[in-house]
Amino acid sequence: VAQNIYDDPGFFAGYSRLPRSVRGLAGAPEWPALRALLPELTGLRIVDLGCGFGWFCRWAREQGAAHVLGLDLSRKMLERARAETGDPAVVYEPANLERLELPDAAFDLAYSSLALHYLPDLAPLFAAVHRGLAPGGRFVFSIEHPIYMASRHPAWMTDADGLRTWPVDSYQIEGERRTNWFADGVVKYHRTIGTTVNLLIGNGFVLRRLEEWGPTDADLAAMPALADERDRPMMLLVAADRP
Amino acid sequence: VAQNIYDDPGFFAGYSRLPRSVRGLAGAPEWPALRALLPELTGLRIVDLGCGFGWFCRWAREQGAAHVLGLDLSRKMLERARAETGDPAVVYEPANLERLELPDAAFDLAYSSLALHYLPDLAPLFAAVHRGLAPGGRFVFSIEHPIYMASRHPAWMTDADGLRTWPVDSYQIEGERRTNWFADGVVKYHRTIGTTVNLLIGNGFVLRRLEEWGPTDADLAAMPALADERDRPMMLLVAADRP
Repeated sequence: VAQNIYDDPGFFAGYSRLPRSVRGLAGAPEWPALRALLPELTGLRIVDLGCGFGWFCRWAREQGAAHVLGLDLSRKMLERARAETGDPAVVYEPANLERLELPDAAFDLAYSSLALHYLPDLAPLFAAVHRGLAPGGRFVFSIEHPIYMASRHPAWMTDADGLRTWPVDSYQIEGERRTNWFADGVVKYHRTIGTTVNLLIGNGFVLRRLEEWGPTDADLAAMPALADERDRPMMLLVAADRP
Repeated sequence: VAQNIYDDPGFFAGYSRLPRSVRGLAGAPEWPALRALLPELTGLRIVDLGCGFGWFCRWAREQGAAHVLGLDLSRKMLERARAETGDPAVVYEPANLERLELPDAAFDLAYSSLALHYLPDLAPLFAAVHRGLAPGGRFVFSIEHPIYMASRHPAWMTDADGLRTWPVDSYQIEGERRTNWFADGVVKYHRTIGTTVNLLIGNGFVLRRLEEWGPTDADLAAMPALADERDRPMMLLVAADRP
């Protein structure tokens, strides 16, 4: 069962101070790459799985989307999303993505940013998204990369020659990982890239693009801390079509 | 340019003593998983890219393949493959996979085992394989996993708590990696999973299956050293269709 960590007061306070919470999409270094996976949004019906503060929902409307449904488990996030959105074509609803139900063929785009690694099993979600998308629809999501998640001690190391390196172990052992990120014992779920991709294909999607996000030279010049992401990917970006 | 390391006498001698060289397919722990990606072979026209000693070519004929073309850069390997194959429907030819040319739509299956990481660029090969496959054909290959290849010091480490872990760094920096494996300075080429997958899709393939191979419990019981492969994948297995 997914933990509702975003409603934990300490976690919420910390998360709310992240650049991507304060500045929105422009505060997320992977956003240009994720945006490149999206179709032209004019007239599209969109569902955002794990919409958080609603940054993507509002942006999608600015791009001409016909209607955006933002779903999230966190009541606190939905509250703020609603307060910051004055647009009747953007609707926010509480939803547990583990038991997602969408009306059949009601959307042209399903989008999710860094939410799916909180789910213990992606199979029911992928099936629900496939049903909810109209033929020709697209599913675009980012998820924590398994290289970032696998290790039992996910922290930078320095080897005998002074090389700074990231540990990978337990890679084939999928399932729960606990980390301390704004709160102790935040639970997320590790799975291999193969598992995620094969679940998509098994649910009828056609993979269009798989990106293990890393910074461009311009990103690095603007934000030197992104050098970590050159050494080991933290995020996987995926685009798949529902034929 | 790919290095022809397999014709180096020291390398050849060492490689020839590997279980997969002595025992063939049964000596390769990933073989059952790779085999599961193959179509039914009866009547198929097959090309094996990097056929080595010809173990797969001979096995494919036993399974009823109509014709098998084994290609390899190493003259020594082709010599032994020819000596061990008495079957006019199996033909071995020297070929540089960097400049592969196949007759149009002449094959139903292209297969490659642990050869493609020796190529600096997969784009020309993927285009050639796509042209060489008939519609409905399949491309199945294994390649070294980027987690295994990325680091500048690819060797097990032990962290402060005694955890044995594998280093990942330089992941986004694709290109040449030199290792000492039966010979000094063996050159192979690191690329991300995303690069390999997106090149397949960009060349018209539909991804069918992606597996980051790891041992089963039965594999581990039979060969405890495979525990390494549970901690970090060494091989990527891929199946893609040419629609």
